[in-house]
Amino acid sequence: MDKINIGMIGYKFMGKAHSHAYRDLPLFFPNTVRPEMKVICGRNAKGVAEAAKQFGWEEYTTDWKALIKREDIDLIDINAPSDVHKEITIAAAKAGKHIFCEKPLALTLEDSREMLKVVEAAGVKHMVGFNYRFAPAVMLAKKLIEEGKLGDIYHYRAWFLQDWLVDPNFPLAWRLQKEIAGSGSHGDLGAHLIDLAHYLIGDMTEVIGMSETFIKERPIATNTTGLSANSSNAQAEKGKVTVDDATLFMTRFANGALGSFEATRYGTGHRCTNSFEINGSKGSVIFDFERMNELQVYFTDDHEDVQGFRRVLATDPAHAFAENWWPPGHTIGYEHTFIHEMVELMEAFKENRQPVPNFHDGVKCQQVLEAVDQSIEKRQWVSISEV
Amino acid sequence: MDKINIGMIGYKFMGKAHSHAYRDLPLFFPNTVRPEMKVICGRNAKGVAEAAKQFGWEEYTTDWKALIKREDIDLIDINAPSDVHKEITIAAAKAGKHIFCEKPLALTLEDSREMLKVVEAAGVKHMVGFNYRFAPAVMLAKKLIEEGKLGDIYHYRAWFLQDWLVDPNFPLAWRLQKEIAGSGSHGDLGAHLIDLAHYLIGDMTEVIGMSETFIKERPIATNTTGLSANSSNAQAEKGKVTVDDATLFMTRFANGALGSFEATRYGTGHRCTNSFEINGSKGSVIFDFERMNELQVYFTDDHEDVQGFRRVLATDPAHAFAENWWPPGHTIGYEHTFIHEMVELMEAFKENRQPVPNFHDGVKCQQVLEAVDQSIEKRQWVSISEV
Amino acid sequence: MDKINIGMIGYKFMGKAHSHAYRDLPLFFPNTVRPEMKVICGRNAKGVAEAAKQFGWEEYTTDWKALIKREDIDLIDINAPSDVHKEITIAAAKAGKHIFCEKPLALTLEDSREMLKVVEAAGVKHMVGFNYRFAPAVMLAKKLIEEGKLGDIYHYRAWFLQDWLVDPNFPLAWRLQKEIAGSGSHGDLGAHLIDLAHYLIGDMTEVIGMSETFIKERPIATNTTGLSANSSNAQAEKGKVTVDDATLFMTRFANGALGSFEATRYGTGHRCTNSFEINGSKGSVIFDFERMNELQVYFTDDHEDVQGFRRVLATDPAHAFAENWWPPGHTIGYEHTFIHEMVELMEAFKENRQPVPNFHDGVKCQQVLEAVDQSIEKRQWVSISEV
Amino acid sequence: MDKINIGMIGYKFMGKAHSHAYRDLPLFFPNTVRPEMKVICGRNAKGVAEAAKQFGWEEYTTDWKALIKREDIDLIDINAPSDVHKEITIAAAKAGKHIFCEKPLALTLEDSREMLKVVEAAGVKHMVGFNYRFAPAVMLAKKLIEEGKLGDIYHYRAWFLQDWLVDPNFPLAWRLQKEIAGSGSHGDLGAHLIDLAHYLIGDMTEVIGMSETFIKERPIATNTTGLSANSSNAQAEKGKVTVDDATLFMTRFANGALGSFEATRYGTGHRCTNSFEINGSKGSVIFDFERMNELQVYFTDDHEDVQGFRRVLATDPAHAFAENWWPPGHTIGYEHTFIHEMVELMEAFKENRQPVPNFHDGVKCQQVLEAVDQSIEKRQWVSISEV
Repeated sequence: MDKINIGMIGYKFMGKAHSHAYRDLPLFFPNTVRPEMKVICGRNAKGVAEAAKQFGWEEYTTDWKALIKREDIDLIDINAPSDVHKEITIAAAKAGKHIFCEKPLALTLEDSREMLKVVEAAGVKHMVGFNYRFAPAVMLAKKLIEEGKLGDIYHYRAWFLQDWLVDPNFPLAWRLQKEIAGSGSHGDLGAHLIDLAHYLIGDMTEVIGMSETFIKERPIATNTTGLSANSSNAQAEKGKVTVDDATLFMTRFANGALGSFEATRYGTGHRCTNSFEINGSKGSVIFDFERMNELQVYFTDDHEDVQGFRRVLATDPAHAFAENWWPPGHTIGYEHTFIHEMVELMEAFKENRQPVPNFHDGVKCQQVLEAVDQSIEKRQWVSISEV
Repeated sequence: MDKINIGMIGYKFMGKAHSHAYRDLPLFFPNTVRPEMKVICGRNAKGVAEAAKQFGWEEYTTDWKALIKREDIDLIDINAPSDVHKEITIAAAKAGKHIFCEKPLALTLEDSREMLKVVEAAGVKHMVGFNYRFAPAVMLAKKLIEEGKLGDIYHYRAWFLQDWLVDPNFPLAWRLQKEIAGSGSHGDLGAHLIDLAHYLIGDMTEVIGMSETFIKERPIATNTTGLSANSSNAQAEKGKVTVDDATLFMTRFANGALGSFEATRYGTGHRCTNSFEINGSKGSVIFDFERMNELQVYFTDDHEDVQGFRRVLATDPAHAFAENWWPPGHTIGYEHTFIHEMVELMEAFKENRQPVPNFHDGVKCQQVLEAVDQSIEKRQWVSISEV
Repeated sequence: MDKINIGMIGYKFMGKAHSHAYRDLPLFFPNTVRPEMKVICGRNAKGVAEAAKQFGWEEYTTDWKALIKREDIDLIDINAPSDVHKEITIAAAKAGKHIFCEKPLALTLEDSREMLKVVEAAGVKHMVGFNYRFAPAVMLAKKLIEEGKLGDIYHYRAWFLQDWLVDPNFPLAWRLQKEIAGSGSHGDLGAHLIDLAHYLIGDMTEVIGMSETFIKERPIATNTTGLSANSSNAQAEKGKVTVDDATLFMTRFANGALGSFEATRYGTGHRCTNSFEINGSKGSVIFDFERMNELQVYFTDDHEDVQGFRRVLATDPAHAFAENWWPPGHTIGYEHTFIHEMVELMEAFKENRQPVPNFHDGVKCQQVLEAVDQSIEKRQWVSISEV
Repeated sequence: MDKINIGMIGYKFMGKAHSHAYRDLPLFFPNTVRPEMKVICGRNAKGVAEAAKQFGWEEYTTDWKALIKREDIDLIDINAPSDVHKEITIAAAKAGKHIFCEKPLALTLEDSREMLKVVEAAGVKHMVGFNYRFAPAVMLAKKLIEEGKLGDIYHYRAWFLQDWLVDPNFPLAWRLQKEIAGSGSHGDLGAHLIDLAHYLIGDMTEVIGMSETFIKERPIATNTTGLSANSSNAQAEKGKVTVDDATLFMTRFANGALGSFEATRYGTGHRCTNSFEINGSKGSVIFDFERMNELQVYFTDDHEDVQGFRRVLATDPAHAFAENWWPPGHTIGYEHTFIHEMVELMEAFKENRQPVPNFHDGVKCQQVLEAVDQSIEKRQWVSISEV
C-alpha cells in the first residue's frame, strides 16, 4: 500500500487545515503512505466547488451518502459540524471505510460509544483529531515522562484560554449553540486539555467542575464560518447562548497526581493559550501553544547552582518530526500539528495498525467531559468509571 | 505622635524580616511615624540575645507576659509560631497594646474570631501580616481594578508553588506538624493567595477543594529554623506528616468571577512562584512573585495591531512606594514588602485609623481556609457565609 | 495574467523552501496570480528527479541553459549555490525571463551591480530572497515606523546568532569555503541583518567592522546538503576554513541613528536568533526570529503607570497576511516567510510592477557587505557611497 | 579589628545607597567587621544634617578637610560628584585613611593613575564602587567561567540601556555637563559595562568606538539631585549638552573573544537594562539587571533533546551571599549590590588584604574609557596598551 484515497466531508476551518496537511505531507514525509486528495464533500455546491479548486481536491460532491459508497475511496475524513459526526461515521464504517473524525467524536458520550462499537465491528481504522498531541514540544514532554525523567507526577495543571468572546457584540456563532456544538469552551477547548492529560499522564478517577455563561444573550449572526463570524452591532436581535463560556474542574489521576483544568473564551489577552504544567519528583515541564515550538524543562538533578527552567526549542534533530522540517531554530506553526497527525494516520496504514489517538481516546475524552458536566449539575464529585 | 515603641515576640525568619523593616523604614520613609526597636522577646535567652544585638533591638527578654505589661511599649509584634498567636494577642490587647500579628492569625477560624472580638473590645489597632499586598506591582493591579481599567472581572486564578518538599528526605520541620502549624500548604501559602484575592477581587461565596499529602512520612528533624531544617538522612527515624502537601480549590466570587487556587510545596522548579492572573472585560493582569517588580498588563482598547501583554516594571514614580526607593528600573526585593507593610502600620498611627489588612481580613482569610477544609472533608461545595 | 510558469534551478534547502511556497500559495492566497511548478533543474539527475517528484514539479532537467530558453517558462527561480547566481541570472534575463534570485545576489558587489544592470536592460522583473522581511511581526515593525509611532530613530541594533559551528568537528561544509559561499557569517547571516535594516531604517552612511575565524581548520566533509553535513570525526583530514566565523560592525544611518550589527555561527545556545531592536523618540520594538510570531512594542505615550514592552502576537486580522492563515493565536513558522515572499512576487505580476525587495536591494546589501569587508581590511571607517 | 569607623563625603543618590548598606550590613552579615556610621559630610549644612538624621550617622560636617584628619576615622567613603574625587582621595590617603571611592575614580585617566599611585604609596586600602559585580547572578556567571563551564570564550556583548533622556525637555542635569560629570553615557553606564567585562573576561587589547549627542541643547535645570531633576518646560532657557548621549564600541579581548558594547540614555523602554551575554565553546550566559536575580545559562553538554537556556534564580544556598538573605525564590534588589560590596570591603579589613575591585580596576576601566574616546576622535582602532 503506497497511497490512500481520501474522501473528505467538511470544508471550512478544519477542512482547510486537513486539506493543507494532505497536500504538504508528501513533500516533507515522502517515505510514508501518500494521501490522495480525491473528493471533497459539502452541503453548499458553490462553496465546496471553490474549496475543491482552492485546496486541490480532484472532485467535489454534495452527496456524502454517495461518497462513502465509492469503491475508490479508502478513508472518510469527517470535519463537518459535530452534530453530524455520528451519522456519517456509522454509515461510512458500515460501508467499510476507514475513518478520521474531528473531535469531539459526538455530542454525547453515549453516541461516541456507539460510534466506537461500530468502527470496531467494521474492522476499519479509526482516528480522532486531537492535533495538539503532535506538537513536537508536547511529544518531548511525553518522551521525558516515559523515560522517567520527571519521576513521580504530583501535579498536572492545564488551561486553554481564548478571548474571542470578551466582546459582548460578538455574534451568536454556531459554536455558541448547544444543539450544533454540543458544548462551549468545555467541549471545544476542554476536550483538548483532557486528551493531552490522558496522553501525558493517564486516566483520571474522579472530577468536580464548575461552569458559567457570562454573557447570556448575543446578537444573532447572519453568517458564520469557523471561528469567525460577521460582526453584528448591538442593535441586532439577540439570541440565547446555550453553551458554557468557561468550565473549570479539578481531578485526581489514577497515578495519584492532582489535576486542575480551565477552559475559557474570556481569557482576555490570550488568543490561544493552550497550556499545561507538570510537576514531578525529578522534574517539571511547561508548555504554551502560543509558543508551540518551546518546552520549558526543569530537572532536580541539575547541578545545584544552575537549576532552572530551560527553554528548549523543539526544532533539533533530537525532536519528533524535526528532521523533516528545517534546520534547528527554524520554527513551525499550528498547521504542522495536522501534518504530523496525518503522518501518524499514514504510518498506521503502512504498519497495518490502529492510529493513535483513535476512537478509544475519543470516547475516554467524552467520558471525562460528561463526568464534569454531571458534577456541575449534581454539585458533587463524580467518579469517571461510573459515567 | 512621632514614634511607636515596639516589643516584638519571635526572632526567627519573620522576626528578622520585621526587624529589618523597622530598621530601614526611617531611612526611606522619614516622614511617617518612626518605629522604635525597643524590646525583642524569645524563649531561648541565648538566641534572643544574639538576635537583639544582630537586629538592633535595645533590649531583649524571655518573658513575654512581662513585656506586654510594660508602659513604654505601644505595639506588640507577634511572629512566634502560629500556635501561640491567640494567647499572646488576647493578653496584649487586654493590656491595651496595639497588635501586629503574623498570618495566620490562629490555628482555627473560631480562635481568630475570638481574637478579633478581643482587639475590637480593647479598642487597639490591629494588623495582620499579609505582606504580599505591599509589592508595588500587586498594588498596581489593585489600582487598575479600582479604576475600572480591567472592566468586569471574569476569572481569577492563583497559584503558590514552592518545591522544598520534593526531596523525600527533607525532614519533618514544624511546618509539617498540624499541632504547631495548623495547616500545610493551605494555611501557609494558600492563605496568602486567599488574602490577595480578597484584596483584589472581593468576597467569595462558595468553595470546593481537594488536598493531598504526597509523602506521608519524613525523617525527624533535630533542629529547624524558618523554612530551613537540618537535612536528615534516609536512615533517620521517621515521623508522620500531619498537614497537607498541596491543596487546590475552586470558588465563585460575589462579583460573579470564577476562581481557581492551588497551593503546593511540590511545584518542582518553583522556589517561590506566588502568582495570580485576572481576566476582565477590558483587560488582564498577571503577577509572579519570582519577578515581583513586574506586572503583565493587557488592555482590550489598545490599538488593534499592538495588543499584547505589557511587562510593566513597577519602579516608576507612578508606582506605589517607588519614589522612596531608587530611580526607575532599579528593583527592590522580598524584604521591601515588609517595609511597605510597616509604613502602612505607621501611617495608621499617624492618621489614627485601623491599618489594612487588619484582623477583619485575617478572619475572612481563615473563614475561607476553613470552608475549603470542610469542603474537602464533606466532598461538596461549602458556602462561605455558613462557616 | 492568472498564472506564472516557473523554472527553478536548485533543489536543496532553498529549493525545498521555494517549492513548498509555490505549492501552498494557491491554497491560502487564491486571489493572486498562481505559480505553476513547471520545471525543476539540478546538476544531479537522480537527485533532481527525486526532488521533482517529492516537491511536485511537473518536469525536471539537468540543463539550465536549455531551461532558460523554453518559451513556456516565465520566471527563473535561482537557488543554486551563490557562485553560479551571476551566470544564470544574466543568461536568463537576456532570454527575457523574470528572475527570482536567492540572496546573496553574487559573490562580489561588482558582480551584483552587473546583474542589476542586465535585468534592468532586459526589462524583466527581478526579486531577491530576503525572506525575513515577510514575517508579519517584522512587517508590523515597519508599519509602526512608517506611521511615525516610534518617532525619530536613535538606535538600531541587530544580531544574528547561530551555533552550528561551536562543535570543532563540524565538517568543512561548502558554506565555510570562500570560493563557493563568498563569505561566512557576514554574507550569510549579516546580509539578512543588513537588508532588514535597510527595509526598516534606511540607508547607512559609513561602517567599521571586525571579524574572526575562531576555528581555522575543520575535518573535510564527504557530503553536505543545506546547513547539515555528514559529521566527520576528529581524525579526518582537515582543510582550511576560508570564511569568517563572526563579523561585527558599527554604522551610522542617514537618518542619524547609530547601528550595531553582529553575525556569528558561534552564538552558543542560539539556533537561529535573528534579532533586532529599534529605539525611537516615541517607542521601541524588539524582534527575535526564534519567536517569529511576536513583536515586543513599547510606546512612550502609554499612561505613566502602565508603560512596558508589549508582547504582540502578530496573528490578528490587523496583521499582515494573518487573515489568510488561522484564527488569532495560531502561529505560523519559518516556511511561511517564503510563501509571503512569493505572494509579493505574484502580486507584482498582477500589478505589473517590480517586486520588493528586488536587485536594487540586493546590490545595496552587497555594498554594505563589501564596505564592511574593506573596513576590516583597512582597519578604518569606510563610507558606503565610496564603495 | 571588629569595626571600622567611617567618614562619608556625599549624601545624595550614592550617599543614600552607601548609608543603607552600612546600616543593613551587620543585620545580615554579623560575622564580618562592623562598619560604624560615624560622620557624614556635605557642602550644604541643612541638607547634610537632615541626611545624617535620616540615614543614621552619628555626626555631620561640612568640612571634609577636617574630617579626613580625625583620628577616630578609619575609612573615607567618597561619593561626592566625580570632579572632586581626586582631590579628596589624595588628601585622605595622605592622611592615612583607607578609601572607598565611587566610580568613576576621576575625570581623566591621568588623574586616576595619580590617585592609584598615591593610595599605593600611602599603603592604605582602596576600593572603587563597581557595585554590579556583586549581584549574585553576575557572580554566578564569574564562577561558571572560572570553573571552565563555558569553555573558551568567543563573544562578549554588553549593553546598558536607560531612557531618561528620551524626553527632550528633561533638563540639563549635572550628569550632562562634561566639566562635572567628565563623560555621559560612556563614563556613567559604559564604565560599568567595561568593569564587568574586565571582571568576567579579562583584558581588552584594542577598541574602536562611536558616539553621539542626539539632543544638543536642553532646558537649564534649577535644581537637580541624583538621577532626577526638576522638570523644566520647553520655554526655559537652554544650555548645551556637553557629554555623549550614547557611545558604542567594539573590542578584542586578550583571550581572543570579540566584544561589543553599547551605553545609551536613549534606550526607549529600558529603565535600567544593564545586560551582557557571553558565548563560549561549552556554554553561554545572559544577564539583565532589570531581572537581577536571574542568570540565563546554557550548556552544550546537556542531553541533546533538552538543550536550552535555563532561567537560574540566584537565590539558592549555592549562590553567593544568598544564605545571608531569604529562602530560595525570595529575591533581592538593587540596594543589595551595595551591601555585598561593603561586605567585600569589610572582609578585606578582616583578612588584611586589598578589596576587589580596587583602584587598579578603576584605572583599567578609565584606560578603556579613554581609549574609546581617542578612537572616536581619531576615527581608528586604538591599542589599550598605548593609552
